[in-house]
Amino acid sequence: MSASSIDLAVIPGDGIGPEVIAEALKVLEKAVAAEGAELKQTHYQLGAEHWLATGETLPDHVLEDLKTRDAILFGAVGAAPGDTRIPSGIIERELLLKLRFSLDHYVNLRPSRLYGTVGSPLANPGTIDFIVVREGTEGPYVGNGGSLRAGTPHEVATEVSLNTAHGVERVVRDAFRRASLRERKHVTLVHKHNVLVFAGHLWKRTVEAVAQEFPGVTHDYLHVDAATIFMVTDPSRFDVIVTDNLFGDIITDLAAAITGGIGLAASGNINMDRTAPSMFEPVHGSAPDIAGQGKADPTAAILSAALLLDHLGYADAARRIEAAVVADVEKRDGTARSTSAVGDAIAAGL
Amino acid sequence: MSASSIDLAVIPGDGIGPEVIAEALKVLEKAVAAEGAELKQTHYQLGAEHWLATGETLPDHVLEDLKTRDAILFGAVGAAPGDTRIPSGIIERELLLKLRFSLDHYVNLRPSRLYGTVGSPLANPGTIDFIVVREGTEGPYVGNGGSLRAGTPHEVATEVSLNTAHGVERVVRDAFRRASLRERKHVTLVHKHNVLVFAGHLWKRTVEAVAQEFPGVTHDYLHVDAATIFMVTDPSRFDVIVTDNLFGDIITDLAAAITGGIGLAASGNINMDRTAPSMFEPVHGSAPDIAGQGKADPTAAILSAALLLDHLGYADAARRIEAAVVADVEKRDGTARSTSAVGDAIAAGL
Ligand SMILES: CC(C)[C@H](C(=O)O)[C@@H](O)C(=O)O
Ligand SMILES: CC(C)[C@H](C(=O)O)[C@@H](O)C(=O)O
Repeated sequence: MSASSIDLAVIPGDGIGPEVIAEALKVLEKAVAAEGAELKQTHYQLGAEHWLATGETLPDHVLEDLKTRDAILFGAVGAAPGDTRIPSGIIERELLLKLRFSLDHYVNLRPSRLYGTVGSPLANPGTIDFIVVREGTEGPYVGNGGSLRAGTPHEVATEVSLNTAHGVERVVRDAFRRASLRERKHVTLVHKHNVLVFAGHLWKRTVEAVAQEFPGVTHDYLHVDAATIFMVTDPSRFDVIVTDNLFGDIITDLAAAITGGIGLAASGNINMDRTAPSMFEPVHGSAPDIAGQGKADPTAAILSAALLLDHLGYADAARRIEAAVVADVEKRDGTARSTSAVGDAIAAGL
Repeated sequence: MSASSIDLAVIPGDGIGPEVIAEALKVLEKAVAAEGAELKQTHYQLGAEHWLATGETLPDHVLEDLKTRDAILFGAVGAAPGDTRIPSGIIERELLLKLRFSLDHYVNLRPSRLYGTVGSPLANPGTIDFIVVREGTEGPYVGNGGSLRAGTPHEVATEVSLNTAHGVERVVRDAFRRASLRERKHVTLVHKHNVLVFAGHLWKRTVEAVAQEFPGVTHDYLHVDAATIFMVTDPSRFDVIVTDNLFGDIITDLAAAITGGIGLAASGNINMDRTAPSMFEPVHGSAPDIAGQGKADPTAAILSAALLLDHLGYADAARRIEAAVVADVEKRDGTARSTSAVGDAIAAGL
């Protein structure tokens, strides 16, 4: 689909979101121009600030409008912790998760790579280069919970994890397909099937079945608790991890931490059937504590823009951005640079 | 309750379970004798091997018999991975989890401490000394799931997390009580209330309410994903963590990894109301790959015996075991020692 023009939706969001998105756009514009393509941008004011101003999270007409775009570049959303004016979690659920669910972003793709000199907190990190394919539209994230007698000593609160053959199979197949294109061609399923028997066995059976379609790809299984141990003792063992929505949330933050922090962690919320636009966002949040100070690292947002280009068929442009990021990151020596200085350096390196 | 005699149930289990339990008993016997007390032991054959021989996991009469003891020392259970003779997870659920639930082990206590020279995989671990109070009888562990149209393309599998005010309040109060006895007097709630709204808010409200009873104890909140980041970038920040059954499972394995591995991680499954015996076990599993070779590290089992003595009112004896362990661990230089050599050294150091 390498069209000669990209109709891009941009949701800068709150806190450092707009700052890092400005740098991602700087790099994206340059990379797209070099392809001789056109980048058309439509910016959407959404997030905690917008909610405070209007009471809107994601109105239907905005969602419909977003659906007409080729892809979405998303910054970060969320109120400052302790801002009691905003009901807790409402922006995350009614904007971010609503987008993932409404646009059927079933592949939540999170690559983890340790670049040369970037500081991992691990003493001997070794080579870290894996991707997590996190399911994005099911599991404990479906919002299917309730409470009975809330606020009384007899309160009961439930959360239901919903898992379907349809939902599990498509993301498992995506993980195997991605593994088949990588050097090590290995998939690790992460779950907790000894406790979460029904969901766990659906995942296990699906992996066994889909593995038949990919004879060149090996696979194994780890309980999520054991996976966190290997993440800090032997992260090199991982190639492609496939896992459910909640386990994926947890281990991708850990994966970001061991590869030098969430300032570098990119992600794609991908609808592989292309029935709706996919959305690309840094894994980090809106970081209200450092917002407005030009301190935020835009690298994760820039790498997310590379994932976006890759998804839209501009693989060469995506590789060029990644190479410029790697070149910049490998030169980092801990000296503080402003958000825009990092963006400028990466753009210059294209 | 420092009785002059302890009626101990011992469940050595499978794999390395019997090997590490032998050393824990060696140390326990010596420590108890020094108190002038008597240690009466009843051993129970339970676990994967026992299931293969008899088809029994935990018969009712055995459970009733266990209930008459003062405490349970538990090794590890579980079949070798890939042993298809044993239905996956059955030993874990019908023995280990059944004990935790039947004996109302609502406080799953897991201390994490980095001893001097023990190898943390972190480059700059700093001082690590926290405890995790993991809820042990509710949450996603209740076994309340199901599947519809299993094995078909229309399969739906569910897992229900059940959380009650009763269950959450008692474990949160326990965490605050433990924090009030520690130097830093700080409790961190770990959950994911921005997504798991109903369960998360029950936990949050309960922490706010119980905190009123402990004006000297401070508290904060972390999403579970963020908690895994801090676990590898700033573990010193933690004092007492209180969390649900599944999040506790995940972060305590990670906590064990950063403090030198699960060879050292002890745990107690504690019924604080003393309506049934509490159970103490190393966090590690049965490790079939190294079983029978005298290679297993018995330290976690020995530290679990110390937690057991502490629970039974023999605080001095518990401290002596811990001190002997610390002295031994600080001398370790990576030279391999047999399971019994480690047990002998710690027993000698009492
Ligand atoms: C903000 C939150 C809802 C979100 C999630 O839990 O998925 C975030 O942690 C992430 O990983 O993108
Ligand atoms: C064996 C398994 C059921 C158990 C759990 O998940 O609680 C173990 O991982 C643990 O942490 O004690």
